[in-house]
Amino acid sequence: ASITPTGTPDKLAIVMVGLPARGKSYIARKLARYLCWLGVEAKVFNVGVYRRETVGAEQKADFFDPKNAEAEQKRREISFVALQDLLQWFKEGGRVGFYDATNTTRNRRKLIVDTMTKEKIQTFFIESICDDPDLIRQNIQLVKLGSPDYRNMPPEAAIEDFIQRIQHYQAAYEPMDDELDKHLSYIRMIDVGAKFVVNRTTGYLQSRIVYFLMNTHIAPRAIYLTRHGESEYNVEGKIGGDAPLSSRGQAYARELKNWMAEFGPKDFTIWTSTLTRARQTAAVFGRPFVEWRALDELDAGECDGMTYEEIQEKFPQDFARRDEDKYLYRYPRGESYRDVVSRLEPCIMELERQKDVVVVGHQAVLRCLLAYFLDKPSEELPYVDVPLHTVIKLTPIAYGCKVEMFKVNVPAVNTYRPKPADGPTAAGH
Amino acid sequence: ASITPTGTPDKLAIVMVGLPARGKSYIARKLARYLCWLGVEAKVFNVGVYRRETVGAEQKADFFDPKNAEAEQKRREISFVALQDLLQWFKEGGRVGFYDATNTTRNRRKLIVDTMTKEKIQTFFIESICDDPDLIRQNIQLVKLGSPDYRNMPPEAAIEDFIQRIQHYQAAYEPMDDELDKHLSYIRMIDVGAKFVVNRTTGYLQSRIVYFLMNTHIAPRAIYLTRHGESEYNVEGKIGGDAPLSSRGQAYARELKNWMAEFGPKDFTIWTSTLTRARQTAAVFGRPFVEWRALDELDAGECDGMTYEEIQEKFPQDFARRDEDKYLYRYPRGESYRDVVSRLEPCIMELERQKDVVVVGHQAVLRCLLAYFLDKPSEELPYVDVPLHTVIKLTPIAYGCKVEMFKVNVPAVNTYRPKPADGPTAAGH
Ligand SMILES: Nc1ncnc2c1ncn2[C@@H]1O[C@H](COP(=O)(O)OP(=O)(O)OP(=O)(O)O)[C@@H](O)[C@H]1O
Ligand SMILES: Nc1ncnc2c1ncn2[C@@H]1O[C@H](COP(=O)(O)OP(=O)(O)OP(=O)(O)O)[C@@H](O)[C@H]1O
Ligand SMILES: [Mg+2]
Ligand SMILES: [Mg+2]
Repeated sequence: ASITPTGTPDKLAIVMVGLPARGKSYIARKLARYLCWLGVEAKVFNVGVYRRETVGAEQKADFFDPKNAEAEQKRREISFVALQDLLQWFKEGGRVGFYDATNTTRNRRKLIVDTMTKEKIQTFFIESICDDPDLIRQNIQLVKLGSPDYRNMPPEAAIEDFIQRIQHYQAAYEPMDDELDKHLSYIRMIDVGAKFVVNRTTGYLQSRIVYFLMNTHIAPRAIYLTRHGESEYNVEGKIGGDAPLSSRGQAYARELKNWMAEFGPKDFTIWTSTLTRARQTAAVFGRPFVEWRALDELDAGECDGMTYEEIQEKFPQDFARRDEDKYLYRYPRGESYRDVVSRLEPCIMELERQKDVVVVGHQAVLRCLLAYFLDKPSEELPYVDVPLHTVIKLTPIAYGCKVEMFKVNVPAVNTYRPKPADGPTAAGH
Repeated sequence: ASITPTGTPDKLAIVMVGLPARGKSYIARKLARYLCWLGVEAKVFNVGVYRRETVGAEQKADFFDPKNAEAEQKRREISFVALQDLLQWFKEGGRVGFYDATNTTRNRRKLIVDTMTKEKIQTFFIESICDDPDLIRQNIQLVKLGSPDYRNMPPEAAIEDFIQRIQHYQAAYEPMDDELDKHLSYIRMIDVGAKFVVNRTTGYLQSRIVYFLMNTHIAPRAIYLTRHGESEYNVEGKIGGDAPLSSRGQAYARELKNWMAEFGPKDFTIWTSTLTRARQTAAVFGRPFVEWRALDELDAGECDGMTYEEIQEKFPQDFARRDEDKYLYRYPRGESYRDVVSRLEPCIMELERQKDVVVVGHQAVLRCLLAYFLDKPSEELPYVDVPLHTVIKLTPIAYGCKVEMFKVNVPAVNTYRPKPADGPTAAGH
């Protein structure tokens, strides 16, 4: 179980607040992904999903009209069920639960706080306020038209209907208030990052969450991940070390530069580790780059510089244990994948803040970064395939990230070692 | 020169705003100390110091009366000189300069922004608002009575005079405004951490600064630093490794527990590294503790497990280079002190947020932490004396930290290796 630096694993209910199409689900999912990646159990309870399961999708705006008493009653019941599920999840050990609904009235918010307080769970509100009509329309187009709610409606009609839905909520909306809500813990995000009001945050998790929200942005951009070019150690099948590039690795570096010139953005930042093979690769751009020690390859400790065969021979037990739980396995005097995740956290935070970036990294380190962006569970993380001489382009879309792999035409050894099949005769590595 | 992850070393003028005794100088100095420790050149320009140098200390409240035209003129001149010095310092390579004055009128703030913009320097405002009369009085007693301004005045008269000074500023005070100042980058801190308004922050440094301000607090507390008990490697004069405690080390652990029971607070959090000697020491408390990999000892790379004599023999050049610049020197495949500082940053951030904490660490790691709390320059950092079997108690006072060393009565080897004297015959290590 993950423990915060306070020593006490605090439970936190995060309650989203805001009109439709203000990014509430986007923010909740993104934060949940970040927390899960850090090892903090987090889950989003989206009331819209409950609604679709209960009364079916394709409800018209009329269903959200506060004057429609019957629908109002139905909606209240549905949110109640979601809230009970959230509580149940906390009881089963959940740590940070998101209650993702509009929660636009003070009354509704009070009910939630009272429910949580009874269970000794802290409540933290995240309100998103945005009155830019262009952005709202864009949000509707990007994520609402694709929703099951509008499966069978022409786009223009759907947009109209959704705008009407917003207006129904608008009528009853009571934004968080400096005076009336001053006893509550909350962050109000105004105009996508232009302004934040932060009130009575307490505890490690709230502090991290606020910092994360302040660093994220939704401007279009891409992140390009690549391993260094093939190194001399790669060729010899050795892990770790600080070897220079092989001649094929040097060729890849040159091709990487060409590839970015042809397919990449005009301007981008270059990050690399402090290791020779990564710096040599980044150097081809002929521009300054940022060296992060946090991007250095997983430290194999006493196995550094060995081949897998040598490790198997010298540390047979360790080798077997690593296959059992590769995520938590720590090399003797070295690191585990989990250790790498935790030292990569500042890189992730800074990647959120940046525009276009090229990261020249290493196999294990890039697995950890990819797991964050692609929401991979920790069991799968150590087996993500990150081949040499390949550019991985990540583009944020809707609630997630699009991933594209571009193989650059310079041959290299394959360093992938799959999880061995069960049974004593398994020998693949 | 230190480079931010953007690759461009941005320059930043931080302009404090607020009535007297609102913690402006406290905040500016603390931030400057944090930035310098991180390797970002930062300096505070305090207009009060310029005033005392120009018109002498011991000016009565009358000098701050806006109706006192002559004094007003004088004060304007003085702030102008300070601003010119700040600009000059930026020209000479300064990175984050604090303009520490009340800056209570919108006019004055505009003048500063215009001046900075002309020099392509970003401006960021930090406003502290606090209307708790008890806290203001306490601030006056804690830091203002000791100021040269009141060298020769009885305390009660001084407090009266200072309150009058505040009233003079109050008359003309225009706080930062949601509407009028919405084009500016600022953070407003309200009621010491209860609430923050953050507007238009851009860039890495501003983001870090906001996060830092949100994590600090001024509640009284203490931090207790100690090295692990003497280890078997300490006895053998070897560095690094992962040896267990010697029997004297175990005795120290028990005495540490007794010492905390007798002199420490009732409740405290325990932090340690992931290394055996530190965990064994922390284990004596018989309570859960938090293991930070970031608190692990400086990694001596290929020299791990050697004695200084062996290092001198096997890596004579490295050994000499280390004495030349011990802060930047990186062991072959290992770390430098600067590397350790950078991985300790999350610990410092979290220490700021915590109440009472005991940190069971290591010689180099504790040197880095001490350098932060005691504002030691990086050249001195690697020579800070952190003896074994000693509790170092840090208590925040006024603008800094009180440090007390308590030697616990269990003998241990001395692991201190002073900077060798100059000259070819120097042999001390
Ligand atoms: N702070 C923000 N303000 C406005 N839009 C945002 C914000 N953050 C993200 N977005 C955008 O919002 C879109 C996603 O909207 P989302 O579905 O999360 O809205 P919602 O508030 O959950 O709406 P609903 O109430 O219908 O569930 C994405 O396109 C994303 O880029
Ligand atoms: N955000 C804050 N609000 C109020 N007091 C604070 C805050 N932060 C720190 N303090 C307290 O303020 C005291 C220091 O006051 P400081 O000298 O920094 O005030 P100042 O605003 O610089 O006053 P002056 O205008 O006279 O220079 C310390 O005792 C510190 O604990
Ligand atoms: Mg939603
Ligand atoms: Mg001051």
